[in-house]
Amino acid sequence: MYKLVLIRHGESQWNLENRFTGWHDVDLTEAGVVQATNAGKLLKDAGFEFDLAYTSVLLRAIKTLNIALEEMGQHYLPVERHWRLNERHYGALTGLDKAETAEKHGEEQVKIWRRSFDVPPPSVDTDSEHFPGHDRRYRNIDPSILPKAESLKLTIERVLPYWHDVIRPSIQDGKQVIIAAHGNSLRALVKYLDGMSEEEVLELNIPTGVPLVYELDENLQPVSKSYLGDPDEIKKMEEAVAKQGKSK
Amino acid sequence: MYKLVLIRHGESQWNLENRFTGWHDVDLTEAGVVQATNAGKLLKDAGFEFDLAYTSVLLRAIKTLNIALEEMGQHYLPVERHWRLNERHYGALTGLDKAETAEKHGEEQVKIWRRSFDVPPPSVDTDSEHFPGHDRRYRNIDPSILPKAESLKLTIERVLPYWHDVIRPSIQDGKQVIIAAHGNSLRALVKYLDGMSEEEVLELNIPTGVPLVYELDENLQPVSKSYLGDPDEIKKMEEAVAKQGKSK
Repeated sequence: MYKLVLIRHGESQWNLENRFTGWHDVDLTEAGVVQATNAGKLLKDAGFEFDLAYTSVLLRAIKTLNIALEEMGQHYLPVERHWRLNERHYGALTGLDKAETAEKHGEEQVKIWRRSFDVPPPSVDTDSEHFPGHDRRYRNIDPSILPKAESLKLTIERVLPYWHDVIRPSIQDGKQVIIAAHGNSLRALVKYLDGMSEEEVLELNIPTGVPLVYELDENLQPVSKSYLGDPDEIKKMEEAVAKQGKSK
Repeated sequence: MYKLVLIRHGESQWNLENRFTGWHDVDLTEAGVVQATNAGKLLKDAGFEFDLAYTSVLLRAIKTLNIALEEMGQHYLPVERHWRLNERHYGALTGLDKAETAEKHGEEQVKIWRRSFDVPPPSVDTDSEHFPGHDRRYRNIDPSILPKAESLKLTIERVLPYWHDVIRPSIQDGKQVIIAAHGNSLRALVKYLDGMSEEEVLELNIPTGVPLVYELDENLQPVSKSYLGDPDEIKKMEEAVAKQGKSK
């Protein structure tokens, strides 16, 4: 029996400003730091002892992990940072205020871009500051495979090779693993693990800063799945995530 | 031509309290956080773009590195944390106030323990809380090779295999490397790189939070070596380090 913990990063500056973030690299807010600290406390109190941690190459996930590990006294663990765990790339919507976008394109169109399974938002041009090919952190990646905009489907296709090639083998080697990532890269993992349909994953709203604990059998099939923390509080957070993107 | 940057962690809580720290895992002080931030600023202003970072498994070095990398906007880099880069293990002196130890054992004896090349301080017992065998982070290491007390000589012998087997090959592969570590693990590297004598390394006082930049030729022989920052400020810091351990 294996355990796996997933955690979505705490509130970021652009979450707070209700802007499409994606691959843009924003910091946590003070509230986000508190969420990460609380996640660390919950994991410590529950007695988790990890061997290995995975995260994206984006500051908000990296810091959430650093803060939680320090809170657990497990800051010494190896951490692998990989672009395949990044958030969905929001293309030409990156940086736009969500409510403004809804006003401009209509709430339905925004809902399609945010919540449809396979319709990507408009792409960035390769000369846009939001095209990852200009960012030094992606310098060793063929620019032709870097996203210009991603649907949830494309995000899942980009995330899962890292699960299959790197994370899963480490769990099967007996490593206790924690993954700190983003709303949509975690949806990719949960859809895969739980065998969710496209419709089901669209209804999945992972709250920020709440450890999601899987128990997996020897074939890495989920036996149980639960959030750590106060159930009422978690329900409120799921509902808040579901409401994002509605125009005001 | 290669470049290599070494940085000693910022002020820790036990530096401030003038206690022997070694492998005990203390946090940075606020001043230490500021030092790490300033180091990141200096490196950013100097245009450094790293590929890979190494540090110990102790919080004060890990955090110094995290803070400096974030300040540089290079928080996405791979970081390898290894026990061989830890500070010298101070054995049964761990946790003692340096001035008190000097009063008890005499300033000369303390100077011998701190500043002799090959005289280790008294060992900890294996049932001491300061024996690393009780700490989960060393669980995969044969307890018989974990230190109970180290002279500078023993520290160097423990650090250098990691240089030869891991760090050096990565530099020769063309990786721009930064190492965040401790007074004595960095002395080990500097002694080796500069071909210092035992006497010379005892006079070497590396200031905290100041990036030390090596230029290395194709055989990794140093061509130049310099601290980043204000020379007068750095000289004062070197003198302050040299004065530690004198009883008051």
